[in-house]
Amino acid sequence: MRKVAQACKDFGQRVQKSVFECTVSEVQYERFVHRLLAHIDKKEDSLRIYRLREPKETSVRVYGIDLYVNFEEPLVF
Amino acid sequence: MRKVAQACKDFGQRVQKSVFECTVSEVQYERFVHRLLAHIDKKEDSLRIYRLREPKETSVRVYGIDLYVNFEEPLVF
Repeated sequence: MRKVAQACKDFGQRVQKSVFECTVSEVQYERFVHRLLAHIDKKEDSLRIYRLREPKETSVRVYGIDLYVNFEEPLVF
Repeated sequence: MRKVAQACKDFGQRVQKSVFECTVSEVQYERFVHRLLAHIDKKEDSLRIYRLREPKETSVRVYGIDLYVNFEEPLVF
């Protein structure tokens, strides 16, 4: 699953152990799915892709620890 | 996380180790979130809720092993 994780990190971020949030265009989307499929064994692995509406805030609610870093907002340390 | 899992199973199914797909009405949705929050420690746990569009087929693509059982369709063994 390391290659799947790398493919996801090329388009987004890991937010939980086996959950990634990625932002891709319509064109990138099919190429992205194709790349993911090249790295899984359909008899052993389970891959679920959820398409969310934009803006992200209307589709995602986060409670507790949030690993996601929004690089479009100023990074405050 | 056992109580969170049980709350999710009351409204849906586990599809991966820490991923559940639930079907709730607008009214149930807030009560459901409230119930989940009662069972997590915000300093230690990470809860992400993704709202998907209906019909589900437009929002979810599944590849490989699929644990989800669609009880609305005839069960064929």
